[in-house]
Amino acid sequence: MFYHDDELQYEVEVEEPNPKFAKMLQQAIGGAEGEMRVALQYMFQAFAVPAEKSEYRRLLMETATEELGHIEMLATAVAKNLQGASDEQREAAREDAVIAEMMDSGQPRQALSAGLHAMPVDSNGTPFNGGCVVASGNLAADMYANVMAESTGRLLATRLYEITDDPGMEDMLSYLIARDTMHQNQWHAALETMDDHVPVPNSFPQEKENQDHNYEFMSTYRDEQPDPEERWTQGESVDGNGEFSYGEQPGGGEPDLDEVIEAMHNEIN
Amino acid sequence: MFYHDDELQYEVEVEEPNPKFAKMLQQAIGGAEGEMRVALQYMFQAFAVPAEKSEYRRLLMETATEELGHIEMLATAVAKNLQGASDEQREAAREDAVIAEMMDSGQPRQALSAGLHAMPVDSNGTPFNGGCVVASGNLAADMYANVMAESTGRLLATRLYEITDDPGMEDMLSYLIARDTMHQNQWHAALETMDDHVPVPNSFPQEKENQDHNYEFMSTYRDEQPDPEERWTQGESVDGNGEFSYGEQPGGGEPDLDEVIEAMHNEIN
Amino acid sequence: MFYHDDELQYEVEVEEPNPKFAKMLQQAIGGAEGEMRVALQYMFQAFAVPAEKSEYRRLLMETATEELGHIEMLATAVAKNLQGASDEQREAAREDAVIAEMMDSGQPRQALSAGLHAMPVDSNGTPFNGGCVVASGNLAADMYANVMAESTGRLLATRLYEITDDPGMEDMLSYLIARDTMHQNQWHAALETMDDHVPVPNSFPQEKENQDHNYEFMSTYRDEQPDPEERWTQGESVDGNGEFSYGEQPGGGEPDLDEVIEAMHNEIN
Amino acid sequence: MFYHDDELQYEVEVEEPNPKFAKMLQQAIGGAEGEMRVALQYMFQAFAVPAEKSEYRRLLMETATEELGHIEMLATAVAKNLQGASDEQREAAREDAVIAEMMDSGQPRQALSAGLHAMPVDSNGTPFNGGCVVASGNLAADMYANVMAESTGRLLATRLYEITDDPGMEDMLSYLIARDTMHQNQWHAALETMDDHVPVPNSFPQEKENQDHNYEFMSTYRDEQPDPEERWTQGESVDGNGEFSYGEQPGGGEPDLDEVIEAMHNEIN
Amino acid sequence: MFYHDDELQYEVEVEEPNPKFAKMLQQAIGGAEGEMRVALQYMFQAFAVPAEKSEYRRLLMETATEELGHIEMLATAVAKNLQGASDEQREAAREDAVIAEMMDSGQPRQALSAGLHAMPVDSNGTPFNGGCVVASGNLAADMYANVMAESTGRLLATRLYEITDDPGMEDMLSYLIARDTMHQNQWHAALETMDDHVPVPNSFPQEKENQDHNYEFMSTYRDEQPDPEERWTQGESVDGNGEFSYGEQPGGGEPDLDEVIEAMHNEIN
Amino acid sequence: MFYHDDELQYEVEVEEPNPKFAKMLQQAIGGAEGEMRVALQYMFQAFAVPAEKSEYRRLLMETATEELGHIEMLATAVAKNLQGASDEQREAAREDAVIAEMMDSGQPRQALSAGLHAMPVDSNGTPFNGGCVVASGNLAADMYANVMAESTGRLLATRLYEITDDPGMEDMLSYLIARDTMHQNQWHAALETMDDHVPVPNSFPQEKENQDHNYEFMSTYRDEQPDPEERWTQGESVDGNGEFSYGEQPGGGEPDLDEVIEAMHNEIN
Repeated sequence: MFYHDDELQYEVEVEEPNPKFAKMLQQAIGGAEGEMRVALQYMFQAFAVPAEKSEYRRLLMETATEELGHIEMLATAVAKNLQGASDEQREAAREDAVIAEMMDSGQPRQALSAGLHAMPVDSNGTPFNGGCVVASGNLAADMYANVMAESTGRLLATRLYEITDDPGMEDMLSYLIARDTMHQNQWHAALETMDDHVPVPNSFPQEKENQDHNYEFMSTYRDEQPDPEERWTQGESVDGNGEFSYGEQPGGGEPDLDEVIEAMHNEIN
Repeated sequence: MFYHDDELQYEVEVEEPNPKFAKMLQQAIGGAEGEMRVALQYMFQAFAVPAEKSEYRRLLMETATEELGHIEMLATAVAKNLQGASDEQREAAREDAVIAEMMDSGQPRQALSAGLHAMPVDSNGTPFNGGCVVASGNLAADMYANVMAESTGRLLATRLYEITDDPGMEDMLSYLIARDTMHQNQWHAALETMDDHVPVPNSFPQEKENQDHNYEFMSTYRDEQPDPEERWTQGESVDGNGEFSYGEQPGGGEPDLDEVIEAMHNEIN
Repeated sequence: MFYHDDELQYEVEVEEPNPKFAKMLQQAIGGAEGEMRVALQYMFQAFAVPAEKSEYRRLLMETATEELGHIEMLATAVAKNLQGASDEQREAAREDAVIAEMMDSGQPRQALSAGLHAMPVDSNGTPFNGGCVVASGNLAADMYANVMAESTGRLLATRLYEITDDPGMEDMLSYLIARDTMHQNQWHAALETMDDHVPVPNSFPQEKENQDHNYEFMSTYRDEQPDPEERWTQGESVDGNGEFSYGEQPGGGEPDLDEVIEAMHNEIN
Repeated sequence: MFYHDDELQYEVEVEEPNPKFAKMLQQAIGGAEGEMRVALQYMFQAFAVPAEKSEYRRLLMETATEELGHIEMLATAVAKNLQGASDEQREAAREDAVIAEMMDSGQPRQALSAGLHAMPVDSNGTPFNGGCVVASGNLAADMYANVMAESTGRLLATRLYEITDDPGMEDMLSYLIARDTMHQNQWHAALETMDDHVPVPNSFPQEKENQDHNYEFMSTYRDEQPDPEERWTQGESVDGNGEFSYGEQPGGGEPDLDEVIEAMHNEIN
Repeated sequence: MFYHDDELQYEVEVEEPNPKFAKMLQQAIGGAEGEMRVALQYMFQAFAVPAEKSEYRRLLMETATEELGHIEMLATAVAKNLQGASDEQREAAREDAVIAEMMDSGQPRQALSAGLHAMPVDSNGTPFNGGCVVASGNLAADMYANVMAESTGRLLATRLYEITDDPGMEDMLSYLIARDTMHQNQWHAALETMDDHVPVPNSFPQEKENQDHNYEFMSTYRDEQPDPEERWTQGESVDGNGEFSYGEQPGGGEPDLDEVIEAMHNEIN
Repeated sequence: MFYHDDELQYEVEVEEPNPKFAKMLQQAIGGAEGEMRVALQYMFQAFAVPAEKSEYRRLLMETATEELGHIEMLATAVAKNLQGASDEQREAAREDAVIAEMMDSGQPRQALSAGLHAMPVDSNGTPFNGGCVVASGNLAADMYANVMAESTGRLLATRLYEITDDPGMEDMLSYLIARDTMHQNQWHAALETMDDHVPVPNSFPQEKENQDHNYEFMSTYRDEQPDPEERWTQGESVDGNGEFSYGEQPGGGEPDLDEVIEAMHNEIN
């Protein structure tokens, strides 16, 4: 079960409020690369860990809980960017200026639906969708999903860092980028504890795989091409279980569907 | 640009048609782990590769093209499972039997909307959604997304394999599982060609990261816990750039939002 | 069944066309707080009312029908804001000016997909989604959903009112705000006719509830805190059936899931 | 920021595993009435509370944190219902029986995508969507949203209670129903502390409303009907600011849109 | 503006209630081929018609209003199929039987979320989505969208007709199929009044089109194929403005993207 | 199965990069009128064609394959518009200028999520959704869906053409508009080969339709109106099977739902 206290996980200051940057920060809250996704992803992965693997459950749950605090930090950052007023704005009435900026920001819902606060949406206002949360039941697949999530998450954070020059936002993003560095490392570390996990899942007997095409790079060029002699077309496979080769699509005959049954009314003439 | 011919990439036979298995196969077409997602993912990744890295563009585009053929194979498999009749059904009139099975299958749309054919939806009938396609512009992040996609994709295919005992479906899935083995290996191989890519992105100078928390495992237990001495709490970090440590959430003071401007009508009393 | 005539429910005039305001008005059409949602919500609620409670069916259906007319009014307002030309624009060619404003408006689909007209989307262009429509079958729950919908709906309309200074738009919004006032009042009035409906549903015997935690404010602070002595931590409960108290999460032991069955391929080593 | 420990908030036992009930429990996790929605709703509402109203921030954040624990409880319940085997099943091999039940359950993704565990989806497998989360910035509107959420939430829990006869599930649901009772009461209690909040928002001057239609029940019958003399058509309004009356739609003339500009290519002939 | 009365548009009787058929009927309410879509589509199309083309506005609005009544009919049909009891059920307690059928129906939300009533969702429980509503601003394009909608709508209704043998449901569907016949005819009739509208839009000067490829069937076979001499590869084009020919994809050189700017962090070594 | 080569289908040049136009081009990739939709629509329609109608399968598959190449062209156009720099920008540092334009473009995800490249989303950033793909199993219904898709697709392309004055973009759009002209013609040509297909489906015996209302224009005016004597209210129906007439909604009595079963907890008092 969960607990909280009143503090943010890390300080969040905004010197120069900027509604357009608020809109961009939303990507880090509700976007495909954002904190809602990872918080829920690690949580649902943890929920699926059996009792005898409690070290992984703990690893996942600790990090899920940390990410909940990142949502709170980012929501605070969004509100501070939306409610404040830039230097130029201070000359005009603050209220009109903020509204005018919202009109221009491309994300009016932050005023209209949220009264100038954060929302569970991405930077285009598309609502967070649970469909991208990966919790497969297989720990190795989950760890790769987590490496990916932290890779795109850190990429997003560095792009946000390049876009702002507000010292408070830079400090907050510097912290979040650091945490993404750690999280990438910890998921890789967890994979190191699972030897020989490639190909995932490793419990399916590879002899049941089709043996002609399981280490073959399949070229789909219109005109047959010579082997480009890349790391992925020759030499030992990365999992050590095979030898890369180079070939073409095998071909399996034309599909031969029957007319369907009458009650479907597919018939024409 | 693209071309096609009349053949399937690999043969697709169904001995014992089974509408419930057709429903399950839809997950491999339009689900988060399915072929539509990877075909589009590799394609959009390829679209973003600059000219001087054409070997990666080719790698991605060849595989995207292969996956388009997997959609075609699976769509054929769905149709053959839906339109046919099982042994038990042959005693009754085929038409009534198929409709009755559809009523029980939990996926009536395959009759109602598609006349007993495949659809761009997952096994719950949720339409394919482009929101989970990852094409980040950063090749390393993309490769991890691909490793993940092929890990959950192969996991799905092995689960489908366990669920069917139709020889035709087993043969088709054996082929698809083999291809997932290759694809996992080839994305790992591509990552091998990108040295020192962790943490992704590797072009952001790590000295700009917060240096206190970038290799620290952050415990979020209610009550402080001793270091569990796992691979991810001590020793050298996986990227070789730091040393794992163990600590608690730093804390950053309470958020202190102002009342927002009057025009938002947030006020109560 | 339904009927219509050619008139709008209330006049809709726009003096100073403004594509950015058109974009904002879309929130009142297809947004979570908008008219499509309430029209459909009241309609589906009405569809579920049994014959012996026809006064509620009529109440709901009359208001659903009124809301359909609000969609028409707002769609007219959107078109008038998109197609016209502001004073500044009249100096330039009208056509170029409107297109230029669309480029800047953040909602190009109103030109690209709708030829400068209203769409069933919200102010970010996210399509209307039936998933937020509440028609629970329980009239009290439905009425609270309606109070909520009219509260956020009126809030949206007042925010829109603050953002515009077009006299025609102010007049239209003044009318819509008035109707939201009435609708809030009428749903509260309907709740008054349902005595003792809290907790909803009132037909579930409260003695079947867990008796230790049904009137207890559950603190989730990391560190135990003293009772803050608020209205919700002590004194009689609002439903009159209990006494508020203050406590902590009870705790229910660690989850102890088994390893799942082999065919799921969850195993790692 | 957030913390956790290893215990569930309340015990979760399942005597007679039932995959179909697991499917139904998903509605209480990822459905419109479920725990993900309320956890996020209360959290985002809390994120928007200004410093001088910290008692409301605390109220919201404590309850958000509690709801996170309910997700964990329900996810555990789903896994226990999916992985186990009913009495009938024990006669057959457990593995085949569980898979056969999944085939029949209408929710194959719990096997295919999650390896027999909980997912962030509703009982039809539709992914959780942030679009229904209400955090308006206005506390009174938010509280009505919360009353509604707990009303439909408790309704869902009582329906689930009626559907199961597993003692463990009944005990867990009895606890969750009790918490919904408390939560309904606490949100009503918070509304009691905000006097004269109807109509929401109460900061918009009512004299700016259209005064002819703000307390009028608007009949939309095809044929004019006599006043039904209901609580909502006569007598004092619930907010005490007006008198209910009964009337018809005012009518505002026909919409008179111009032809749009040529570049839209709307013309026919 | 809109009006209603208490009657259904056409009688709705159910002799043999069937929850599985209720689930299927949902496709005709909230599915891509359903009545919500056409009611909203015709309504938004009507909203966009300029004053001088009022005969089209009336045509669209009359039909939109009719479709609202179809939603009501279908919602009544869903409720009657869900609440009743089949002959077999009458031997058992009605209540348990209905719940058991819901458990098996694959659509538990009709009990859990709607108390055994209709919902704005399709037959898989996916919520209605406004994204498929077509109201393009161009009347000819809209009419083709309407022909399509009534074609798939009538197809759906005939498939539902084949699946049921309940006399009441057959009678209702016979009426809806008849209306779809009329609607297909009326949209075709409207197209007849717009001469020379192909290609849509007809106001774009065809001389601005690429003149080499505007009447050429473009073969995408891997290996060049002879002209199949079909209606679409030779002879006069249907619009009468050109001559069909047969050719291959022209080819436009390789895409040559630059490396993107540094701040995007796309670089790998 | 599918193949590709390295060339684009047609050249894509951008003289004056424009991030706002890039955002608009996204509608032609991932929008309801876009190339992803038609590529998948024609592909899934082809997947459903039985062996004896292979000319239609080929027609559909050739065009699906062509459309895949259009996605590639448009993705290239988006990247070139995003990465480049306009004349005005060249005076400033290119990097800052591009970022500033992204901030203003209303589509920050193209920087944040895609590193200045194309995405599978529409011009509002809403992800592509498979729910609008029509593949009904009935070829005539499918062809009307295709006529519609190419009509709204060509309309979109002409609107984009009017908005840009970049010579490269005009040339590319001139090509795409030409292809839409051909595609509209080829689907109409295919319909010509299916005589007497209206009403769709033509295999349902029309004598089973309700004979009183299958050729009647149903007026829904509040007040009865005289026959407007339009093409759709009198004369021979377009399908030649009936005579248009003019009438009113028939009326079918009030819906008479029972109270539902107790376990649903719908009761109030």
